[in-house]
Amino acid sequence: MNIVSIIEKKVANKSLTKNEIEFFVNGYTNGQIPDYQMSSLLMAIVCRGMNEEETFHLTQAMLDSGDKVDLSKINGTTCDKHSTGGVGDSTTIAIAPILACCDFKVAKLSGRGLGFTGGTLDKLESIPYFNVNLDQETFCDIVNHVGCCVAGQTANIVPADKKMYALRDITGTTKSLPLMVSSIMSKKLASGAQNILLDVKFGTGAYMKTMEDAIELAQAMVKIGTLAKRNIGALITDMSQPLSQYVGNALEIIGIVKMLNGEKSRLYEENKEVATRLMALCGIDLDKASKMFDDAIDSGVAKHKLIEMVYAQGGDASYVDHPERFNLGEKLDVVASRDGYVGYMETCDIGYAVNLLGGGRMQKDDVLDHGVGVKMQVNLGDKVKKGDVLATIYHRNKNVEQASQLLAKSIFVTDSKPLSTKTVHAYVDKNGVTLL
Amino acid sequence: MNIVSIIEKKVANKSLTKNEIEFFVNGYTNGQIPDYQMSSLLMAIVCRGMNEEETFHLTQAMLDSGDKVDLSKINGTTCDKHSTGGVGDSTTIAIAPILACCDFKVAKLSGRGLGFTGGTLDKLESIPYFNVNLDQETFCDIVNHVGCCVAGQTANIVPADKKMYALRDITGTTKSLPLMVSSIMSKKLASGAQNILLDVKFGTGAYMKTMEDAIELAQAMVKIGTLAKRNIGALITDMSQPLSQYVGNALEIIGIVKMLNGEKSRLYEENKEVATRLMALCGIDLDKASKMFDDAIDSGVAKHKLIEMVYAQGGDASYVDHPERFNLGEKLDVVASRDGYVGYMETCDIGYAVNLLGGGRMQKDDVLDHGVGVKMQVNLGDKVKKGDVLATIYHRNKNVEQASQLLAKSIFVTDSKPLSTKTVHAYVDKNGVTLL
Repeated sequence: MNIVSIIEKKVANKSLTKNEIEFFVNGYTNGQIPDYQMSSLLMAIVCRGMNEEETFHLTQAMLDSGDKVDLSKINGTTCDKHSTGGVGDSTTIAIAPILACCDFKVAKLSGRGLGFTGGTLDKLESIPYFNVNLDQETFCDIVNHVGCCVAGQTANIVPADKKMYALRDITGTTKSLPLMVSSIMSKKLASGAQNILLDVKFGTGAYMKTMEDAIELAQAMVKIGTLAKRNIGALITDMSQPLSQYVGNALEIIGIVKMLNGEKSRLYEENKEVATRLMALCGIDLDKASKMFDDAIDSGVAKHKLIEMVYAQGGDASYVDHPERFNLGEKLDVVASRDGYVGYMETCDIGYAVNLLGGGRMQKDDVLDHGVGVKMQVNLGDKVKKGDVLATIYHRNKNVEQASQLLAKSIFVTDSKPLSTKTVHAYVDKNGVTLL
Repeated sequence: MNIVSIIEKKVANKSLTKNEIEFFVNGYTNGQIPDYQMSSLLMAIVCRGMNEEETFHLTQAMLDSGDKVDLSKINGTTCDKHSTGGVGDSTTIAIAPILACCDFKVAKLSGRGLGFTGGTLDKLESIPYFNVNLDQETFCDIVNHVGCCVAGQTANIVPADKKMYALRDITGTTKSLPLMVSSIMSKKLASGAQNILLDVKFGTGAYMKTMEDAIELAQAMVKIGTLAKRNIGALITDMSQPLSQYVGNALEIIGIVKMLNGEKSRLYEENKEVATRLMALCGIDLDKASKMFDDAIDSGVAKHKLIEMVYAQGGDASYVDHPERFNLGEKLDVVASRDGYVGYMETCDIGYAVNLLGGGRMQKDDVLDHGVGVKMQVNLGDKVKKGDVLATIYHRNKNVEQASQLLAKSIFVTDSKPLSTKTVHAYVDKNGVTLL
């Protein structure tokens, strides 16, 4: 077997075998296949695609390239969620304690922010002393005792993806369904949970720009997860505006606490859909799940569970009860320049504005300021008058001018209302697509 | 401008601009764009193609990456031919002296053999002391005084192609019309001749397997040459058997001398078509050109011209008059294992058999034995009886067993005659395709 003939086979639009796929994944991971051959093959896959079987073998080969998280020591039903990335998406930190209250085990490995998307680990680290670097044993212990734990990867999980993703990023080979599916699903499967809910975003603040593309990606991932014998479903949700009105690390924790205090918002509604669909995958009736979700919040138990998790992970839990303790930056309002409706947002640019302020990364080793960000003061469809505040910037005198200009340009006030301001659009599972 | 956005543009099936094409050709040639990005872009071009304008800009950018041969000091009409590569293709050395006799100037830069194809420089070097390494001035002097000269590239001609070709070879990106066209045509245009005849091969001993593919390649090259203001045409010729019955370096010189002595053969017929079409491009009527070709041979002037060229390039010209002086290997016959017709040849494998004997290169730095090779004793369509000699191997006890087995397997004796044994099938110029 040699890599050139595998590349030529893919160019000729033929399906690759399990052996051929394992050959190039392993060869690239261990350094026997050089970057220039791998990038050529990846581009051939971008152009020619892969069928379901090939995508499954690719996912499996990537999964097998490293360690898997061993959740066998966790007592109870393990569940996991994954968002394809958005702006103000605080879902993981909000629903992990809720699900734990409902007796599910959430052993969640999360990542850091890069580009316009925030990172769950960064958000948690805005709580002083919060520790995301846990060994496998401590991680499982916390899950067993608290019910939920959110940490970074310590084990050597899917090294093939790390190397392939870095190469794809600089060779124009990111936009490919089988490559996206195998990248996400290899990591999800390595994380070990039996029940998985995917949150596939589309719109101006997401990688997929249209609902159709998001559904296609969701269907492909659900197929792979099902083939790997997991209970898996996917929500299709709109990212045409930030999910939470809080965007930025400490700010998002503030938004989560408000939600756990019972404040109804788009974040609340979307998180409820994610959490109840995940409970349904674990065998709970949807109506019952909905009631369990509301009860967990209304009783105050969910918020207490977040405090427990923060405490267990070494964080100063007083910040959850007293979010006013967060050291936020100075405020600056961005106002409407005309009367009309909030008709359209360049949501990615709202994420980039937070980066400019120092709240996100453009390069892997950028250091974050957790206290900067943006609080949205309007939602899509709101009627506004000239001079009304659209959003408030929290800054520390870094790039304020640039960030406020970018923000002003990314919230469009128009003559007519947008056609839809709905967040959750569809649910995909092995039985097909249900429009919601 | 950045390379990733250029790659993404090509993947999205959009045409690249002149500036974008120059950017990546120059960036790759000077080392600013790394191999892994270039191979991804090359694969995108393989999959998405390039239109005529893009292909022209690519050819031009590659041409401009290095030096051009300056033929301005040559007095007379310069003409050049290029074969896409075959087995036993001795055309260049045979027709250069013929064209010189007819008062055309042949300033020919040739290459070495690699893979199953032989190399003109290697064949010439089987004549003791023959020197292919000439500086530009000596090269032009010989062309002016003798009328023809065949040498290797000394100047820095199309460095972009050297680097791109080496990368394409190991990244599965060889099979692409725009990449093939720009590779061949950038070198042809850099060689400076005003009149160019391409010999585009198809069949079992060529890179293009079908006549349709060969015509497509020829049409694309003729378009680029015409856009570059050259007189250009292309013959479409069949390589389903070796062109000369002599395959191997010294053996091919023997075959050329026989032809220049007037021996009629497939080589003679094909070479006559190439030479007269080239003369026609220079403005000579085809019938007149045909007569000039025959006269040059029948008068003995063409053979004398070859002697002159060999002498001018330092070679021992006595070998042309006395080819029996070549130090050939020992002979071994390969015979038919059954009665029937010579129905099919794996012509590439005949080339590889010569390599096995030591007469060709599998790696760039392999050292050649000029005295080994294969003499075909049959043509396609010949009737043979079991035990008849199909071919004679000239060897020096290196890989004889392997080579004779490969040769025996590559000449098929079948029950029925092959459908066609024609060599020249079509002619392509700016006016279109003419079937011959």
